[in-house]
This record gives sequence, structure tokens and C-alpha cells, in this order.
Amino acid sequence: MQEIPESLEVLVEEFRKLPSIGKKTAQRLALYIVEREGKQVQNFAKALMDVKEKIHQCKICGNITEEEICSICANPKRDHGIICVVEDISNLIAMERGGSYHGVYHVLNGLISPMQDFGPEQMGIDQLLARLEPDREKEEPIREVILAISATVEGETTMLFLAELLKKYDVEVSRIASGIPVGGSLEYYDELTLSKALEDRRSMNDD
Amino acid sequence: MQEIPESLEVLVEEFRKLPSIGKKTAQRLALYIVEREGKQVQNFAKALMDVKEKIHQCKICGNITEEEICSICANPKRDHGIICVVEDISNLIAMERGGSYHGVYHVLNGLISPMQDFGPEQMGIDQLLARLEPDREKEEPIREVILAISATVEGETTMLFLAELLKKYDVEVSRIASGIPVGGSLEYYDELTLSKALEDRRSMNDD
Repeated sequence: MQEIPESLEVLVEEFRKLPSIGKKTAQRLALYIVEREGKQVQNFAKALMDVKEKIHQCKICGNITEEEICSICANPKRDHGIICVVEDISNLIAMERGGSYHGVYHVLNGLISPMQDFGPEQMGIDQLLARLEPDREKEEPIREVILAISATVEGETTMLFLAELLKKYDVEVSRIASGIPVGGSLEYYDELTLSKALEDRRSMNDD
Repeated sequence: MQEIPESLEVLVEEFRKLPSIGKKTAQRLALYIVEREGKQVQNFAKALMDVKEKIHQCKICGNITEEEICSICANPKRDHGIICVVEDISNLIAMERGGSYHGVYHVLNGLISPMQDFGPEQMGIDQLLARLEPDREKEEPIREVILAISATVEGETTMLFLAELLKKYDVEVSRIASGIPVGGSLEYYDELTLSKALEDRRSMNDD
């Protein structure tokens, strides 16, 4: 067998740690790095370090930012009376890509998962509840909390838990609709999705 | 739209430059980096830089190595009388994975591609021919050159070109067989592969 040089082996292992990168892809990526110019690889390494140095969580919502407060929380044009609760930054980015939501966010640290021993304490709920306290005079009071969380077992558990907690507060609590994706054909979806879609059906008379 | 922090945007772009990494994957990888511990990201960045610093081409065959001469050329147990010509390091690694080849290699810098203006000069053929010169007393004379190059248009052109050049030397020149992959069903392969496989058929009487 060809002994792969040690430094290359190390890089292959580093690439393999990334999500969805298998052994073959990791090797291809590492070989690509070998063939690239030194300056370009330096830029890549620098970009990695910069991200760790500059990016941290928004003090208010947990979104990522290079400032103290993220661009959404700092935007006066957003509706600061509605909080959309998402499970992570990717989901926040997905919501923003949609472009139809104009409130602010609260990013959880994950979902309740008894199997992985991840309970409500770790989720960052305290910060969410603090935002709902009515005695915070400066900010607009929160009128509504939208739970935009995946309809998985962990997601459902988290949503039920949050809904229960939020009963104490004078806010409207809602969750995004489950149903058939736009453009999706009914036949491809499971019974649970179909029954949810039926349950969440909306009247067309008002349209 | 959520303004993605600039340093993250830069990292997404760096990931996108890697082969077969699209926009969505690049974003997922970059977010994964944000969530990883500083120390681990540092190790990743270091691995990238190390590869560029330590790895270079073997003086003899063009394989990658951290030494002056690669582990294959330096191995006295390999047959230094047979050179297998491959188009890049990935193909060398694939050949070695097979484990049935015990000669040495010559790694080209690429294949002849008139469309991309990549001619024989850039391919590193001079170094290959130098290895075939009979007056090099120290080393074992080369008895055979095996062309292990993909049967694509560029590969075929390169093989024909090399075969023509090598006629001047007193060496056996061969190319690896084209045919049906082991375990492959005939019906899935094109007529050209089938006709090549038929042409290269081997007698079973000798077995």
C-alpha cells in the first residue's frame, strides 16, 4: 500500500469530521488542497480562524453576529413584538430566505431529546422567558411567539413543553403549519403528514 | 434577508471553491465550523497549512511525499524495472489500493486536452523519458511501461501520443484493459465498452 504522507492523512481526517463528508470525499478534498496554490490555502485557513474569532451569539436572540447585537435585532424596521422560535441558525437562515417573516427571532441551543440527555435547561429557554417579562420597559412588549420547529419527535416534545411554559405569559402562541409542501404530490407523503394537513386545512371562503 | 456575518460569508465562499461542494453544503459546513470548539478549528486550519508546507512532489516519479523521494520509489522491494504511468495522485492511490501492482510509478501533470490548451509539454513527459534513458547506470533499466490512464478522449489521445514517443526506447509498452467492471452486468454498459471488452478477451485455455 502507498503510505499517504502523514500531514495529508491528518488533513483527510479533519475533512472527515465535517458533516456528510465520507472517506472518499475527504481524500478528494485533501488532494485538491495539495494541488492548490499556497496563498489560496492560506486564505482558506484564515477564513476558518476568522469565523471562530469574530462570530459569536447575539446577546438578545442567540443569532450569530460579529457585533454585540445581530442585524435582525438591531433593525428598527422589524416587528419587535413577534418572536419566532427556531431550533438553530440554519433554520433561521431558511426562514429569512422565505422573506415573508418580519418579526425577530429566538434561537434555541437544540431540542429536548431525552435519548441524548438534552433537557430544557440546556436549550436557552431562560433567555426567551426573560424577553417576555412585562417589566422590561424599554422594549416593545411581545404580542406573539411563533414556534417554527420541525415536526419531529424532539420538535413536538419541545413545542409542547414551550407552549405549556408560555401559558403563564400574556402572549399569543402559535406553531407553523404542518402539511404538504408546495408543489408536492399527495401520494408521496405519509399518513401522519396527510392527517396533519387535513387538520390544519384553511377555509377558502375568506380569500 | 438575514445579513450573514461577513467572516461567515467568506468561509462559505472558501468551502464552495472545493470540488463538488455546492452552495447549500458550503453553508452547512461553515455553520458547523461556527459551532465547533476553537481548538478544533485551529487544528483544521493547521492541517491545511501543514499540507502545503510539508508535501511536495517526489523528485523521481511526481508522487506526493514529505521526503525528497516518495515511499514507493524508496522501497527496495518494489520492482524498479516497471513504470506505471498514471494521470494524477488519486489514480495512483486507487492503483495502490488494488494492491496487485508492485512496480513504480510516473505521475503525469494531467492529460493532453486540446480544448483546454493543455499540451504534451506541460504533462511532465520529459521526466518520464529521462527515466528510460539507458545510460543511467545506477538504476535498474526499465523493462516495461504500463499506461494506466482512463479511456476517455483525453486519455486515449495521451496514450496514443505516449505509445508513439516510447517506440524509440527498448521497452515493452502496454495499457490496462478496457472491459466490464467485476460484478458489473453487461446490460448497463455502452457498446464501446462492450466492443473493447470483446476485443481484449483473454483465452481461458491457459488457466
